[in-house]
Amino acid sequence: MAYGIIGKLTAMQGERETLLAILLEAATSMEQEAGCEAYRVSVSLDDDAIVVYEVWASEAAHQQSLALPVTRRLIDQAKPILASVEQMVTFEPKGTY
Amino acid sequence: MAYGIIGKLTAMQGERETLLAILLEAATSMEQEAGCEAYRVSVSLDDDAIVVYEVWASEAAHQQSLALPVTRRLIDQAKPILASVEQMVTFEPKGTY
Repeated sequence: MAYGIIGKLTAMQGERETLLAILLEAATSMEQEAGCEAYRVSVSLDDDAIVVYEVWASEAAHQQSLALPVTRRLIDQAKPILASVEQMVTFEPKGTY
Repeated sequence: MAYGIIGKLTAMQGERETLLAILLEAATSMEQEAGCEAYRVSVSLDDDAIVVYEVWASEAAHQQSLALPVTRRLIDQAKPILASVEQMVTFEPKGTY
């Protein structure tokens, strides 16, 4: 079963562009992974958050991605500038995605 | 500027599959519109909601879609079985989408 997550990440003040660059690098890397169907990064128009929409072949594929060296490096880069991380919703895609 | 919305729609009890069918029909129609980059429909794994992730060429393109006969027909079909509609976030996509 395909598995999706929408997350909302907020950087510390003045760090949004740096966090955005890290997440766009994550998008490029993740979309090369066989189990990743989509990894789309957006900036919120409602507040300072960055929104990430991810679709994976399965929940296991998502879990495995967290252990990849590139993921661990990007998480290490993002951590010091993250103010908050919120998982908005997890979902099963229907139709095309 | 491209424009995105994530919405969460909840059907009245027993009507989720009907609402899902309406939204999947909307997805098929909207993705044929020139201004629509993505219209992805998912079922929440957290609650009974249906999640819609939309990306449009512009906010104006989104507004115009609401006036289309197909949109008006599908909204009319959905209204009687909708318990709630929540706009989770509006956004500007970055990178690929």
